[in-house]
Amino acid sequence: MPEYQSLKVELNNQIAHIQLNRPEKLNAMNAAFWEEMVEVFDWVDATDEARVVIISGAGKHFSAGIDLALLSTAAGEMTRDIGRNAERIRRNVLRLQAAFNAVDNCRKPVIAAIQGYCIGGAIDLVSACDMRYATTDASFSIKEIDMGMAADVGTLQRLPHLIGDGMMRELAYTGRSFAGEEAAALGLVNRCFADADALLAGVTAIAEEIAGKSPLAIRGTKEMIRYSRDHSVEDGLNYIATWNAAMLQSEDMKIAMTAHMTRKKADFAD
Amino acid sequence: MPEYQSLKVELNNQIAHIQLNRPEKLNAMNAAFWEEMVEVFDWVDATDEARVVIISGAGKHFSAGIDLALLSTAAGEMTRDIGRNAERIRRNVLRLQAAFNAVDNCRKPVIAAIQGYCIGGAIDLVSACDMRYATTDASFSIKEIDMGMAADVGTLQRLPHLIGDGMMRELAYTGRSFAGEEAAALGLVNRCFADADALLAGVTAIAEEIAGKSPLAIRGTKEMIRYSRDHSVEDGLNYIATWNAAMLQSEDMKIAMTAHMTRKKADFAD
Amino acid sequence: MPEYQSLKVELNNQIAHIQLNRPEKLNAMNAAFWEEMVEVFDWVDATDEARVVIISGAGKHFSAGIDLALLSTAAGEMTRDIGRNAERIRRNVLRLQAAFNAVDNCRKPVIAAIQGYCIGGAIDLVSACDMRYATTDASFSIKEIDMGMAADVGTLQRLPHLIGDGMMRELAYTGRSFAGEEAAALGLVNRCFADADALLAGVTAIAEEIAGKSPLAIRGTKEMIRYSRDHSVEDGLNYIATWNAAMLQSEDMKIAMTAHMTRKKADFAD
Amino acid sequence: MPEYQSLKVELNNQIAHIQLNRPEKLNAMNAAFWEEMVEVFDWVDATDEARVVIISGAGKHFSAGIDLALLSTAAGEMTRDIGRNAERIRRNVLRLQAAFNAVDNCRKPVIAAIQGYCIGGAIDLVSACDMRYATTDASFSIKEIDMGMAADVGTLQRLPHLIGDGMMRELAYTGRSFAGEEAAALGLVNRCFADADALLAGVTAIAEEIAGKSPLAIRGTKEMIRYSRDHSVEDGLNYIATWNAAMLQSEDMKIAMTAHMTRKKADFAD
Amino acid sequence: MPEYQSLKVELNNQIAHIQLNRPEKLNAMNAAFWEEMVEVFDWVDATDEARVVIISGAGKHFSAGIDLALLSTAAGEMTRDIGRNAERIRRNVLRLQAAFNAVDNCRKPVIAAIQGYCIGGAIDLVSACDMRYATTDASFSIKEIDMGMAADVGTLQRLPHLIGDGMMRELAYTGRSFAGEEAAALGLVNRCFADADALLAGVTAIAEEIAGKSPLAIRGTKEMIRYSRDHSVEDGLNYIATWNAAMLQSEDMKIAMTAHMTRKKADFAD
Amino acid sequence: MPEYQSLKVELNNQIAHIQLNRPEKLNAMNAAFWEEMVEVFDWVDATDEARVVIISGAGKHFSAGIDLALLSTAAGEMTRDIGRNAERIRRNVLRLQAAFNAVDNCRKPVIAAIQGYCIGGAIDLVSACDMRYATTDASFSIKEIDMGMAADVGTLQRLPHLIGDGMMRELAYTGRSFAGEEAAALGLVNRCFADADALLAGVTAIAEEIAGKSPLAIRGTKEMIRYSRDHSVEDGLNYIATWNAAMLQSEDMKIAMTAHMTRKKADFAD
Repeated sequence: MPEYQSLKVELNNQIAHIQLNRPEKLNAMNAAFWEEMVEVFDWVDATDEARVVIISGAGKHFSAGIDLALLSTAAGEMTRDIGRNAERIRRNVLRLQAAFNAVDNCRKPVIAAIQGYCIGGAIDLVSACDMRYATTDASFSIKEIDMGMAADVGTLQRLPHLIGDGMMRELAYTGRSFAGEEAAALGLVNRCFADADALLAGVTAIAEEIAGKSPLAIRGTKEMIRYSRDHSVEDGLNYIATWNAAMLQSEDMKIAMTAHMTRKKADFAD
Repeated sequence: MPEYQSLKVELNNQIAHIQLNRPEKLNAMNAAFWEEMVEVFDWVDATDEARVVIISGAGKHFSAGIDLALLSTAAGEMTRDIGRNAERIRRNVLRLQAAFNAVDNCRKPVIAAIQGYCIGGAIDLVSACDMRYATTDASFSIKEIDMGMAADVGTLQRLPHLIGDGMMRELAYTGRSFAGEEAAALGLVNRCFADADALLAGVTAIAEEIAGKSPLAIRGTKEMIRYSRDHSVEDGLNYIATWNAAMLQSEDMKIAMTAHMTRKKADFAD
Repeated sequence: MPEYQSLKVELNNQIAHIQLNRPEKLNAMNAAFWEEMVEVFDWVDATDEARVVIISGAGKHFSAGIDLALLSTAAGEMTRDIGRNAERIRRNVLRLQAAFNAVDNCRKPVIAAIQGYCIGGAIDLVSACDMRYATTDASFSIKEIDMGMAADVGTLQRLPHLIGDGMMRELAYTGRSFAGEEAAALGLVNRCFADADALLAGVTAIAEEIAGKSPLAIRGTKEMIRYSRDHSVEDGLNYIATWNAAMLQSEDMKIAMTAHMTRKKADFAD
Repeated sequence: MPEYQSLKVELNNQIAHIQLNRPEKLNAMNAAFWEEMVEVFDWVDATDEARVVIISGAGKHFSAGIDLALLSTAAGEMTRDIGRNAERIRRNVLRLQAAFNAVDNCRKPVIAAIQGYCIGGAIDLVSACDMRYATTDASFSIKEIDMGMAADVGTLQRLPHLIGDGMMRELAYTGRSFAGEEAAALGLVNRCFADADALLAGVTAIAEEIAGKSPLAIRGTKEMIRYSRDHSVEDGLNYIATWNAAMLQSEDMKIAMTAHMTRKKADFAD
Repeated sequence: MPEYQSLKVELNNQIAHIQLNRPEKLNAMNAAFWEEMVEVFDWVDATDEARVVIISGAGKHFSAGIDLALLSTAAGEMTRDIGRNAERIRRNVLRLQAAFNAVDNCRKPVIAAIQGYCIGGAIDLVSACDMRYATTDASFSIKEIDMGMAADVGTLQRLPHLIGDGMMRELAYTGRSFAGEEAAALGLVNRCFADADALLAGVTAIAEEIAGKSPLAIRGTKEMIRYSRDHSVEDGLNYIATWNAAMLQSEDMKIAMTAHMTRKKADFAD
Repeated sequence: MPEYQSLKVELNNQIAHIQLNRPEKLNAMNAAFWEEMVEVFDWVDATDEARVVIISGAGKHFSAGIDLALLSTAAGEMTRDIGRNAERIRRNVLRLQAAFNAVDNCRKPVIAAIQGYCIGGAIDLVSACDMRYATTDASFSIKEIDMGMAADVGTLQRLPHLIGDGMMRELAYTGRSFAGEEAAALGLVNRCFADADALLAGVTAIAEEIAGKSPLAIRGTKEMIRYSRDHSVEDGLNYIATWNAAMLQSEDMKIAMTAHMTRKKADFAD
C-alpha cells in the first residue's frame, strides 16, 4: 500500500478508501495533495483488486478546498513579464486540473462521502466523482467567486451535468451555502444520511454492491457514461458496439449467465 | 394494417398503438421483435394518419428486456477467430440498436406506457421514446450489469439526458430496482398513474391532445428537440431557421391563425 | 440612460432593470421590441456600472409572447417565389433570434422576474436568461405549437438544458399551461415567490448579492458555464485555464484575498 | 449474383465490379439506379468474397449525372401546400443521399474508374468512393449550379476533403469543365491513364493488390480514415485503440506475421 | 453607393468591387478599415443587385496588413490592471475578427485579386474570401510572427483549410515570403496572372460567370461549403436536404430547366 | 542533458536534436523507445532554452517502424480471457500513442529530417511532427497493412490532414512504397534535399530561423494550428482572442516592435 502525506489509503474487500487526511487543516488541498491525487489514482487504476473507490475526509469535514497558501505561493512566482506569467499560470491550472481528471478518468467508480464542509475546490473534486452521498448537515459552497476568480479546476465544466443550469448559475454567482437536503433535491448528491457513521455505512454498502459485479462490465459502463457526456448519441452507440465486440467474448458474461441460470452469486476474476 | 409476430398494432383516432405482445414471456425481446420494430416504425413514418404512437406491453408487464435465448444463439455463433467474431458481434449490436433508433428517429412522437417490469433492454427502449408514463408499481432495473455486460442498445447514451448523471451511475452500476414514484422524481417518467387502466387512459388523453395539433409543427418540434440534444445552441438555432424557412409558408400556420382568430378548433390535414 | 419604445430601463446600485413596457398589450413582443433588445444589451455590455440585469414585465404579466401583428406583416410580405420567400423568412428568424442571443451572450448575469403570463416567445426569452424566478401564480405555456409552428427563437434549443428531456417534450407538444410551483419543480425557475412584490424584492436581493462580487470573476464564470453547455469537459477545462492565465493576474484577486484576510467586504472596480 | 436494371454486377477474384449500365443514356441516374445502389451495396457488404469494389460506367462515359426526368417527376408531385411539399422534398433528398452513403459506409474499399463524362450527380458519387482514377480525357463538371440548385447528394460535403477549399469553390460556383490531368493535380483523382483500357487494367491491378491484404485490416483501415474525417485526432486515437482491442487478437495478424517471417504470401480467410 | 474613408466601392454588372484605398500607405488596415469592412459587407449582403464581390488593393500592392499605429494606440490604452486589460484586448481582437467574419459570412462569393504585398493581416483577409487569384510577382508573408505575436484575425484558423498542414506551419513559424507561383502550387491562390491588368481582367471574367448563375443556387452553394468546413459529412447532408426543401420549389430551378431545354441563357431575378 | 538507451539528445543554439539511435536495428522502435519518447519530450517542454526540436535517425535510415519483437511480446501476454486481453491491448495501444501525442502536444515546433526508410510506425511518428523534410531517396510505406492490422498509433488520424483523402487511402490500403519527391508532391514533406547532409543542413537552417523568433509567439502559433485542426473556425477565433488577451501584454511584443522600428534583430528571452 502506498503512503502519502495528504492522503490515507486503505484497500479492503476490493474497495479502496482514500481519505483526505489533514483534518487539522479542514483537509485543505495543499501542494502535496494535488500531486498525490494523480499518484493514488494511478495506483488504483493499476491495482486489479481495487474495484471501487470511496473518497472521504478525515475529521469533521470533507474539505475546505484549495489551501490558500498555494495561491500565495503562486502569486509570489509572478515576474515582470505578463506573457510568461500567463503561460506559467495556464500550465499550473492544467496541472491542478489533472488531479481531478484522474478521478474522472479512473476506470473504476469513485464515490464521494461528504460530511461537513465541501467548499470551493472540494466541489470541483466531488463533481469529478461518479456519485456523491452526504450527511444532512454537509455544507456546500462554490466559494471561488469570493476569491475574486472563476472556478478553474472543474466545477463549471462538470457540475452542469449534475444539476440544472438555472440553479448552477445561482450557486456559482452567489457562492451561497447549501446543505445536504438541498444538494439532494438538486441532484448533486444521490442521498442524504443522518450522520457521518450512517453515511460511511451507506456508501460502503453501495461500494460492496458494485464490487460484486463484473469488473469488465462496470468499467465498460463507466467509460460509456463518461463518453456520452461529451459525444452525440450516435457516436456513443457506435462506441459501445465497438467496445462490446471484444467484451461480449469475455469470461464474465459466461460466469454471469451461469450464475443467472443456477441462481447463484457470480464470482468474477479481478 | 400490418401483422407482426411479436407486436400488436392498432390505429385509431390518428393514434398508432403498438403493443409488445408476448405476455406469456413477459414481452421479452426475441429475434422477431428486433426486426419488427424497424418495420413497424417504417410503417408509422409512412402512414400519414398515424400522428402519435403509444407503446405498451400486453399483460401485466411492459417488458423483461432482451430474450436470453438470443444471447445464447449469439454465443453459439462464435468461431475460433476472435477478430471475425468481434466484427460479427459489432454488426449485430448495431443491428439491434437500429430497432430503437427507429423509435428515436420516428418523425412522430412516441409515448411509452409502462406497467410492471421494465427491465434491461426495456429501459433502452423507453429511453428512445419521447415521453414515458408509468404505474406506481412499475419496476425498473438497468439489469445488463447483472448479465456481466455494459448495456449496449441505448440506455447509457440516452438516459443521461433524462435523469441526472449522479443517479444515472448509481442505477447503472448497481442494477437496483426502483418503482414508479422514484422514476417520476428522477425525471425518467413524466407522471405516475394508480394502475394500468388509469395509465392507458391518461396516456391516450395526452396522445389525443397531440394528435389534434398541426402535424408539421409537431414533427418540426420533435426534430428540433432531438437535434438540440446532440448539437450546440448555435447550430440548433440555425437549423430551425432553415427548417422554418419552408414551414412558415405552410397551410397549417394559416389554419392555426384562423382558428385562433375565430376561436374554433383548428383542423389540420394529415 | 437610453430611451426605448417597448422597454423601460433603469440603472441603480449597479443593477440594470429592463422592463417590457407595453402592459396594455400584455407586453407582446412587437417590431420595436426585437430591435431594442439588441440595442439595450449592447448598452448593458458597454456600461461598466451595470453589473447585473433584471428583466421583468410592466403590469400584471411578464409577456404574452410575440405580437401576432408581426406574423401578419411577415405573411403579407410573401411573394410568388417560394425560394426567395424562404430566404427572407430564414433571415428574419435569424434576426429575431439575435434579440435573445444578446441576452445569452451578455457578459453580465441576466435574471428574469416572472409574474402572470409567460407565453410562447416569452419562454424563448427567459430560457436565454441566466436564472429565472416567478410568482406562484405565473402561467407558462410553449404556445407556438398552437400557432401551427415549431418554436424558432430559442425555446427548443435552450430549455432542454434547464428541464428534463421527457417533460420538455410533453410541454412542447401539448402547449399545456403550468404554474410557478411546477416550473420550480421542473427546474425552469429557481424559486417561487408569493406575489409580484415579493418576487421583485427577492430578485433584487440576489442581484445585489451578485453585484457585490468581482465583476471580472462573475463574467468569467458566466462565460465558462455558457461555454460548457456546448463543449466537452476537456475543451472547457482548457478554456478556463487559458482565460485565467490573464485573470489570475488581476487586481480583483488581490482585493478579494485582502478582504478575506481582513474579514472586510471587498470593494471591486467596475 | 443479383440482377439490376441500371447496374451490371460481376464478382471475380474477390473484386466486385459494378457498372452503371445505361450507356445509351450516358448512364444517367434514373429512379431504378438510386434504389439499386442501396441494394447492391447491401449485397457487397454481406458477401464475404467481395473484398474490393470497382465502379465504372458502361460505354464511353462514366455518367452524365441525375436523369432529368427524375426532376420533372418530382416537380409534378408538388401540391398547393408548400410546407408538405418541403417535407416531401427533404425526405426525397435524404433518400437519394442514402445511395451514396451506401458507398461511403461500405466496409470494403470502393474504387471509381472514370472515363468520359463525370457530371453533376456523378461527382457526388465518385466523391463518396475511396479512390478515383480517370482517363486523361475524362470531363468533370459540378453541373448542379446550371440547374439552378445547390448540389445536394454529397459533392459539397465530401469533395472539400479531396481538393483545396479555394478551387472547390471555383468549380462549384462556375460549373466549369475540367479534364483528367487537372483532376489529378487537384487531388480529385489519384492518377490518369491514357485510355479506358489502360484505366481498367490499372484500377484492377490496384484492386487485386488490396484484395490480397487481410480483409479485417482493410476494413479497419477504411473505418478509421472515414471516422477521422469527421472526428478529432483524440477521438480517432481512442477509437482505433478500442477497435484493435479485439482485432489484434485475430488470426489475420498471426497469418501476416508468419508470412512475414517465412517471406511467403499471406493467405487470409474472407 | 455608400462612401468610405479606407475603401472605394463600385457596383457594375452585378459585381461589387471593393478596393482597399490607401495606396500611399500600402493599404495598411487602419481603424476606419476595420469598421468599414463590416459596414460594406452589410451593404453587399443587403443589396440584391450585388451578386459577386471582388476585393483588390489600389496602387501597387494589395495590402501590407494591419496599420502599426493601431497597435501603438492599443498599447497606449493599457492600464495597471492586467485583468481588465486582458478583457479589453480580448474584446478588441473579437471586434477586429468581425471584419473578416463579415467576408466569410457574406452570402455572396468574394474573390480576392492580389498584386504586390499581401502581408500579415492581408493574409487573414484573403483567407476569409471564397477564392484568391494573384499576379506572379505577388509577395505573401505571415508576418505576425515577426511582431512577436500569434496571428489572431483568422489566418491560423482558415488557412489550414486552403493549404496543407505541413507547409502551413513552415510559413507561420518562419514568416518567410513566397510569391504567386508558390502560392498557386500550395493551393492558396487558384491561378496566377502575368500582371495586375491581366489579373483584374481574369478575376472579372470569373465574377461575371458567377453573376450569371442563379443567385439562390450560388448562395446555397456557398452556405453549404462554409458549413461543411466545420461540420461532419452527415450534418452537412442533413443541412442541404433541409435547405433544398424550400429552394427546390424556387422559380430559379424552373428558369434553369427551361433554359436548359431551350438552350438559351437563363435570366434569373436578383 | 538526459541520457537514453534508444535516443541520443543534444541541445545547441536553442535547438534540441533528438536522434533515434539504434542504427544497427534500422532504428526500430523498441520498448525503451516508446517510454523514452515521453520522457524526452517532457524534458524538451520543461527546458526553456530548447526552442525547436529536430528528430532524425542515426545511420542510413530514419526508422523501420515498430520493433517486431514488441508485437511478439504482446502476443505472449495473451490469456484465455478475451475480454481482459482486449482491455490490456487497448491500454497498451493508448500507451504507445502517448509517445507520439507527446510530439504533437509539445509546445515547441518539432521538425522531422527523414532519410532512408520511414516505414510503418515511423510514418505515425513523423505525422505527429510539425514539419517534415526528406532526402529524395527516402522511402516511405504505411506498412501496417502488411502486418494484418490497421495502423493504430496515429497515421490514420493525422496523415489525412497532410495529404489528400484519395491518395491517403491508396497508400494505406496498398502499403506501397513511395520516395521523397512523391512525398513532397503529396504534401507529406515540405521539401526534398539531395542527400542526408544537405537535409540536415537545410533543416537546421529552418530550425535556427524559428529559434530566433519570440518563443511565446511560436508556442501560441503552434497551439492555434493544432487547435484549429480539431475545432471549428469560430471556436478557433474565440480561443486565439482569449489566448492573446494575456500574450499581447508580453514583453516580446515590445521587443519585436522596437526591433522593427530600429531595424535590428530582436533578442527574446527564453
